[in-house]
Parts: sequence; structure tokens; C-alpha cells
Amino acid sequence: MISSEVTPRLFVPKSDVKIVMVVVDGLGGLPHPDTGRSELETAALPNLDRIAAAGSCGLLTPLAPGLTLGSGPAHLALFGYDPWKNEIGRGALSALGLGMPFTVGDVAARLNFCTVNADGLVEDRRAGRIPTDLCQKLCESLNEIEIDGAELTVAPEREYRATVVFRGDGLAEGVSDSDPQVNGVAPQVPEPRTPKDARMASVATEFLYQANQILHGQHPANTVLIRGFGRFPSLQGMREVYGLKSLAIAAYPMYRGVARAVGMDVADNGLTLDSQLHSLHENWEAFDFFYLHVKATDSAGEDGDFTRKVSLLEEIDPRVAQIEKLAPGVLIVTGDHSTPAVMRGHSWHPVPVVLASPWGIPMAAASQFTERSCALGSIGQIPSASLMTLAMAHARRLHKFGA
Amino acid sequence: MISSEVTPRLFVPKSDVKIVMVVVDGLGGLPHPDTGRSELETAALPNLDRIAAAGSCGLLTPLAPGLTLGSGPAHLALFGYDPWKNEIGRGALSALGLGMPFTVGDVAARLNFCTVNADGLVEDRRAGRIPTDLCQKLCESLNEIEIDGAELTVAPEREYRATVVFRGDGLAEGVSDSDPQVNGVAPQVPEPRTPKDARMASVATEFLYQANQILHGQHPANTVLIRGFGRFPSLQGMREVYGLKSLAIAAYPMYRGVARAVGMDVADNGLTLDSQLHSLHENWEAFDFFYLHVKATDSAGEDGDFTRKVSLLEEIDPRVAQIEKLAPGVLIVTGDHSTPAVMRGHSWHPVPVVLASPWGIPMAAASQFTERSCALGSIGQIPSASLMTLAMAHARRLHKFGA
Repeated sequence: MISSEVTPRLFVPKSDVKIVMVVVDGLGGLPHPDTGRSELETAALPNLDRIAAAGSCGLLTPLAPGLTLGSGPAHLALFGYDPWKNEIGRGALSALGLGMPFTVGDVAARLNFCTVNADGLVEDRRAGRIPTDLCQKLCESLNEIEIDGAELTVAPEREYRATVVFRGDGLAEGVSDSDPQVNGVAPQVPEPRTPKDARMASVATEFLYQANQILHGQHPANTVLIRGFGRFPSLQGMREVYGLKSLAIAAYPMYRGVARAVGMDVADNGLTLDSQLHSLHENWEAFDFFYLHVKATDSAGEDGDFTRKVSLLEEIDPRVAQIEKLAPGVLIVTGDHSTPAVMRGHSWHPVPVVLASPWGIPMAAASQFTERSCALGSIGQIPSASLMTLAMAHARRLHKFGA
Repeated sequence: MISSEVTPRLFVPKSDVKIVMVVVDGLGGLPHPDTGRSELETAALPNLDRIAAAGSCGLLTPLAPGLTLGSGPAHLALFGYDPWKNEIGRGALSALGLGMPFTVGDVAARLNFCTVNADGLVEDRRAGRIPTDLCQKLCESLNEIEIDGAELTVAPEREYRATVVFRGDGLAEGVSDSDPQVNGVAPQVPEPRTPKDARMASVATEFLYQANQILHGQHPANTVLIRGFGRFPSLQGMREVYGLKSLAIAAYPMYRGVARAVGMDVADNGLTLDSQLHSLHENWEAFDFFYLHVKATDSAGEDGDFTRKVSLLEEIDPRVAQIEKLAPGVLIVTGDHSTPAVMRGHSWHPVPVVLASPWGIPMAAASQFTERSCALGSIGQIPSASLMTLAMAHARRLHKFGA
């Protein structure tokens, strides 16, 4: 049963017990062919091993055996929402992450500033990774675009990436990308998937037409590609579902976005682990639930950099011991999905989880924070979307169901 | 998949293979802080360990990870019914357990005889735990109450506890308790949750008014509190679902009630384990499925009495060997939920299960009947509501699904 489907009357709204969930992005890995040991098995993780040996371990299945998830749905599952029923368009996550004006009825999409040649073919989908301040200037000029019956806001993200939010009657998200995903071909025309998406497709087409007029003659960013249309998600918040005042401490916009989508407050932290820990300390009294996101491990896995992923895990280990000093009632360390360096991408493999609380059942065979050790833990293999119920139970924030 | 959702055509109605399910209430526990060993790990259980080593072990999740269940829903799950979709009001369980006249359309509720002071505030919710024979006399006087358009029956349970069944048109269960659950405040007025509950609320209010007139001046039981409204449950019986003639051998009314709710016959046994075994022997030929309920372990857990729970487990162990002598085709020993003595209450932790049949897969690592050993068993961690399908399979009472 998915945590957010548990009736809210079972959750105890008032409690001093705090829950910390550390999400190490792309945590799980696979054995290195030379050593037979995974990233977690290679890293020296004295604190995580100690917590695993004394606490409850298990494996989380992000959605179902074999399914590989993107970070958006994988995070929704960790927060107890059904990622299958609650798909959030990537553009919506970006708009939420950037804190743009974005509300019910709006549709957001991601933009790439890009270079097309004289024949109209994409020469560089990233426009030479233009600097962020140029991106910001270009966004300002795109904000001049006027479309009949629709308002729009464009905001810069990083380098060549930006996000646009459209507002107006009859907008929908079923529109195809103009981004062809490869160089050497022409951008595509946004097409509606169903008749009710026609209005959004024509607004997007008009937007691209005017953007081309504005950017024409610029270099290297002489056009813009649009992709990942997504409407404002209407999910019940963590407060309504679990009664938890929740704070996200995440550096990257998408993770801040998915946290906002489930009604979390988002801390104003920096990019480093230490700035995230500082933020955790500063906000300790004001919240019940803390989601702390670590991005770099996933990037190392995507780059196929086994050694860098190992080092990053070793950097996280002492920070977990620092979090322990705050004495959370429940401390969870897990990942949203696996990103084995040997696969250079997300995978479907279940993700190790350790849960520390006074009510755990430690298992002698599960005394290390690794994929194989956690497979023998007392939590067993459960869906990611059940983790929040378990966390609430260990926090003693769940009433009994039935007499 | 929930057992009762398996299509009945898969179940084999005629078979000599008998199934015994021993439900040790509140079976699962947690490590004692002084020894690191749970109740099951502390108890000497030579027979249960032998059966575990030779049979199939696993852990049952009563409903979903983290959810703590009351005994009613936890038992429904063991019998293969979805406890989430089939919530049975506590009053209905009591009426069924007491064998009161109770049928489709009726609504039952629990009663507490109680003491109020001159200001109308509850002084003792249990009226000094009046003796059961006084309770019986008071119930007889309440049976004189007449309400326009509704019939009622009041029956004593134990000490200050009784149950009332209302019969009449338009009765529903969505009515709040008059029992304030604490002393020092006034009883509440039963309120309907929705318009269709209005008739039941007004009948209950009239019942309480007349009860007060009858009890006024008595001591210590000078009023009555009402709680746990529940309509007659309309579940398909075990016979219709599985084709099993089923017998419950349980001493306590609630467990007899939940067994009746799923269409079991209920044996006329005494309170002791030995009288329950005697009943099992006597009825051996007449039934296919036997549910034998042991209550005392749960009470010991609720009292936080680790040592008593250990002793009770040691008393059960030789009885299981006696049941083996009857040569059931499938012998299951498990619990409805965990009640760790260190938590003094029900918990969400998965419950050990052992299943003995000729078709099991013993595991070297799962050679003891404990939480941690069963976690490594060949059954794995499955929902309680899947156990009946597994039992039917081991009894060879399940056809193949599909060609």
C-alpha cells in the first residue's frame, strides 16, 4: 500500500519526533568487473556500516521489478506517492524548482538555447553551453513575447537551459517537443496529442516563432528548443497527507521542484554538503521531516566514474554521523534509484536503505550498508512508496488501524 | 494477491487434507535491551524450532509496511480478506463473538457501564469493574427499553462491558461514540457522520436517555457509555470462497466474532489451551480448516511483561507437538500482529510464520522460530492476506490457473 493512500486519520499530527531522510541520488551500484565489488562495497563507510549493523536494513524497489525510474518519479515514490498515477512533466518540475510563478492551470516547459545553421538544421543543441548570465539576458528578451490570450514567463536555469511557464485558458500538457534530441536535423513543430491539446500547441508554436525573430542573428544562441511540457501538479501536500511540516534541503532545481510539488518548504541552502548540513541545523526546530538530497553520486554514476562515486560516498559517510548528533527519532539513508557506474545510467536495481530508530530489528547478516548486505535486512524488499509509512511507524506517528 | 480475491473455481472443494492455523496473538516481539534477544529468541521452543527447520518459514506483513493493525483487521487478513476494504466495527465483532441475534441491516455497539458524578461528569469509565453477574442483571433491565421503530438486544460481556444490537429500518454505522475515553468530562452525544446516519444517532440517543432513567440512583453503575458502532459485515464465507468447512477454537468473544464474520463455525471450548486442544480432537473429522486462537501472549505483550510472554510461548510449544500428532496436511503457526513487550502494545513489525507440509523448502539459515530466522525463510515476506492461498496450495486444494 502506497503511503499517501493510508487514511490521514491514522497519522499523528503532533509529535516531537523528527524524521530525516537522506537521499543519495543514484545510490545503488553493481560490482566492478575487476574487483567484483560495487561502489558501496568498495567505499570505506564506517558510520553507515555501524548504523546498518544497529538498525534496520532493506532494499527499496522504486516502482516495480525491472522498471528504471527518472529522478522525478523516483522521488515521488520516496515521499509515498504513486509515481505511476502522478506523473509530473519535467517542465513542471523545473518551474517549481526555480520558484517561478506557477499555479493550477498553468503549463511549463523546458527551453534549450541552441544554434541552428543557415539551412535551419540544429548545429549545437546547447549553443556552446553559453554562460548563465547570457542565458539570463536572453530570457529577459523572450519575456517581451506577447501572445493573444496567454501570458508567459521565461526564467534562466543554468548555462543554455531555461524554463517557460504559460498561463491562459484551455492550456494542456499533451504537446510534443520541438527538440529533436540530436544535432543535424531541423527542430520539430510542437504537435498536440489530442484535440484538447491544440490550444497549447498553437501557443507554443507562436512562442517559438516570436523567439526566433528575437534571437535571429545572435550567436551562438540563435534559436530555442522546447520540451517536457507539464501542467501544475495537484498533489496533496505532505502536511495534509502525513501531518508533517517538511523541509527540502536540495541544491538542484528539479529536486527542489519535486519537493514543492508535495508541499514541502525548500531551504535556501548552497551547493555543498556542508551548506546543506548547516541548513539542517538552522531549521531543526521548525520542521518535522527533512529531505536532504545529494546529487553528485548520480552524476558520477552517469559519467561511468566508479572511483569518483566511491569517493563521494566516502564524503557522505562522516556527514551522516553529524546528522546523528542532532538525534532525529528516525534517520533514513537511501537513494531514489540505482545508477551503477558500470551502466553509466539509471537502473532498475533495488536501492539499499537503512533506517535507524529505537524500534528496529538488526540482522547479523545485514551489518554493512551495501546492496548485498541490505538484501538480508529485516525490512526486506519493499516498494519505495511504502517507506514513508514505515518511517511514520518508527517515529510513533501512526495510530493503530482497527480495534 | 489477496487470497479471497482468487477465483473460487481454483479452489478444490473435496479433499481429505486438513489445515490447522494456530494464531498466537501478538506473536512477534523485539529484542530485550539487556540481552539483545526477542521473546521468541529467549524462549526454549524445541518443537517449533524443529518444525521451522524442517518446514517453510517467513514473515507476514499484516497489511503494509509500517501499519499497525488491531486484532480484528489483522485476523481478517490471516483469513485472506482485505482488511482495508472490509473494516468491521468493534461493536459488530462483539455481537458476533457473543453469538447475539445479529443479521444484515443490524447495527451493534459496545457498552461500558460507568459511574458519573452529580455534575454529570464521568468518574469511572469502568464503574469499578462491576462483577459480570451484576452486568448481566443490568443488561436485563436495559432490555426493557422500547424505541419506536427499532428493536434492541443487550447482552453482557465481562465485568463492566456489554454489547447492544439495534434492528430496524434505516440504521447505519456512521455514528460517533458517547464514550469520551477519559474520566472527568461529560459523556458525548452520539452524532451522525452523514445524513444517512441520522436515524441511528437518534435511536442511540433515545437508548441512552432511557438507560439513564433506568440506571439513575444505582451505584456504581449509574449510566452507560456507547462506542464502536458497526453494521453486520457482509463478507463471503470461507466455505464460499475456499470451499472449506471451517471451525474456530477461540476463547475470547472478539475472535469468535471475526471467525463468525467469515462464516466459520465456532467451537464450544473453554478458556485453557488444553480445552482448545480437546475441542480440536473432538471436531477433527467434521471440518477442513481449524483456526486455533491463543490470546494470552498478546496480553503479556500489552502489559510489557517480557518474561510472562516467554513462559506462555514455552507453554504453547508442546501443544503444537500434540497438534502434529493429528497429522494435519498443513500446519501453520503464526500471529495476527506483533506485540513486543518492550513497546507494551501492538506494532507494525512483520510476524513470523512457519508452515509444515510435505511441499516446503527448508532453509539452513531459517532453522528457528524467531523473527530474525524467519526473515531468512523460503516464504519470504508476504502479506498476511496471501497466507490462505499458500496454505491451500500446500494442501493441494488449488487448481492450476490457466492451461
